[in-house]
Amino acid sequence: MDTSSPLRKRMAAYVRDLQDRICGAIETLDGTARFREDRWERPGGGGGLARVITDGGVFEKGGVNTSEVHGELPAKLAERMGVERAEFFATGVSLVLHPASPRIPTVHANFRYFEQSNGDAWFGGGADLTPYIADEADGTHFHRTLKNAGDPFGAELYPKFKKWCDEYFFIKHRGESRGVGGVFYDYLRGTPEEMERHFAFQQSMGNAFIPAYIPIAERHRDERFSDREKKFQLLRRGRYVEFNLVYDRGTTFGLETQGRTESILMSLPPVVNFDYDAPMETTDSEKLLTSWLRQPREWA
Amino acid sequence: MDTSSPLRKRMAAYVRDLQDRICGAIETLDGTARFREDRWERPGGGGGLARVITDGGVFEKGGVNTSEVHGELPAKLAERMGVERAEFFATGVSLVLHPASPRIPTVHANFRYFEQSNGDAWFGGGADLTPYIADEADGTHFHRTLKNAGDPFGAELYPKFKKWCDEYFFIKHRGESRGVGGVFYDYLRGTPEEMERHFAFQQSMGNAFIPAYIPIAERHRDERFSDREKKFQLLRRGRYVEFNLVYDRGTTFGLETQGRTESILMSLPPVVNFDYDAPMETTDSEKLLTSWLRQPREWA
Repeated sequence: MDTSSPLRKRMAAYVRDLQDRICGAIETLDGTARFREDRWERPGGGGGLARVITDGGVFEKGGVNTSEVHGELPAKLAERMGVERAEFFATGVSLVLHPASPRIPTVHANFRYFEQSNGDAWFGGGADLTPYIADEADGTHFHRTLKNAGDPFGAELYPKFKKWCDEYFFIKHRGESRGVGGVFYDYLRGTPEEMERHFAFQQSMGNAFIPAYIPIAERHRDERFSDREKKFQLLRRGRYVEFNLVYDRGTTFGLETQGRTESILMSLPPVVNFDYDAPMETTDSEKLLTSWLRQPREWA
Repeated sequence: MDTSSPLRKRMAAYVRDLQDRICGAIETLDGTARFREDRWERPGGGGGLARVITDGGVFEKGGVNTSEVHGELPAKLAERMGVERAEFFATGVSLVLHPASPRIPTVHANFRYFEQSNGDAWFGGGADLTPYIADEADGTHFHRTLKNAGDPFGAELYPKFKKWCDEYFFIKHRGESRGVGGVFYDYLRGTPEEMERHFAFQQSMGNAFIPAYIPIAERHRDERFSDREKKFQLLRRGRYVEFNLVYDRGTTFGLETQGRTESILMSLPPVVNFDYDAPMETTDSEKLLTSWLRQPREWA
């Protein structure tokens, strides 16, 4: 690794490479659909590359988006972040995958880097899983893979970032989490030496996405599912929408600060049901899953 | 009308009566489904009666809810309303109807009364239409009926409340309105004599709902529709969800202040599509409708 190049350049290159690798793995798994690309430019500076997969053999809708933007920090964003109005640079990869089958969990991940013109800079990111069946092995595999990727950088990191994830992806008005969690971290900043270490951690987490998720999707891809399992997925996707539009900071700030609407809302599931007072614990699997959502548990 | 009885009692009685009349008209129109009732109590005081219709001949999902609640004003609500922490009383009827056919518009209406223990009290409400086809006669009929109901109370009211509606139901990140509008009003307060007049206005608007909407639904109920019209409806329902969860104060404050989640989210459409970068102007009707959403027009 060429550490003489600025961190922002190396992170931007990492992000593009990770996007390529993840899209490759997803296409291989999917078997039929290919990502289509949308390259966009940001009026204030920079742009991005949206990659979207639709109506595939496995994935009903998915996006793996990268962006590398710079310019004047939107006033609202500066205010919410508690920073001065300044020039900024940001790059990251953000993905959400919605499988057609309710036997395969939805997954979300995000690995980002932010820099201000005053020199302050930080990493943030995370990955979390939203299953529609109660499969303990899936949750354990996902969490253990992330834990193993983080442990070399300090055994305290996984528990801390796992807890942060549980707190972040909480749908307050439902009294339940969006899914079974994963990790969430932000504001990883420090001295140049510490930033190098954070960047190594960031890459370790980013690299863990494929081994954390793909084996779970593979394991369930050929399983049959019942009508009720499908219906339950459509209803739980409703909760996913509720979280993203009501609570998710990336979404709400993105919309407020005139981000690219299509990229921001790429995360929403393709088909969703909102029923009045829908029963959500009709089977043992639904009951067990709901208990996990109501009370976060230890997975790794 | 017995004006010796307190306004709150008379408004609560009006609200219950209007709920009965609207549900009766909806059931008659629907032809097959009946409303089911959910009576609920609010831990802090009062309660409500949710009436929900599902999978009917005309209506895929609809709710006509009343509530009559009192107690200590939630701190967050007091703050947002700029009022002191105090005891409050509130009653109102709120309805959203989602027809299965894209030829029939979705409709929302709300007529409410709020009172604080310091004596301050006001009426609020409105009705607005969300069509999926560009039918000029529908928009004109809806707006004219509301205008005719308001005009006896002052010719300035309809234009003012029509504009308020256009401003309120605006999806900022889409640069378009949720629908073709109607009227929206709030904080109708004043002397006891003025409050009597506001109450008469409120009843006139409430009574106008049935003649404003039912003839539109009747006119289109037996029309055939294309697959594309249905798809367009599912996509536009996505915008409806975006508005309600991101911008609607009733929804966001309701969720924040621990209102009854199922009643608050009753407004969400039953089946929704969120496609990435979906084409929304593929037909002349879609183009015309979109132009109305981008630039509010005069209807009455």
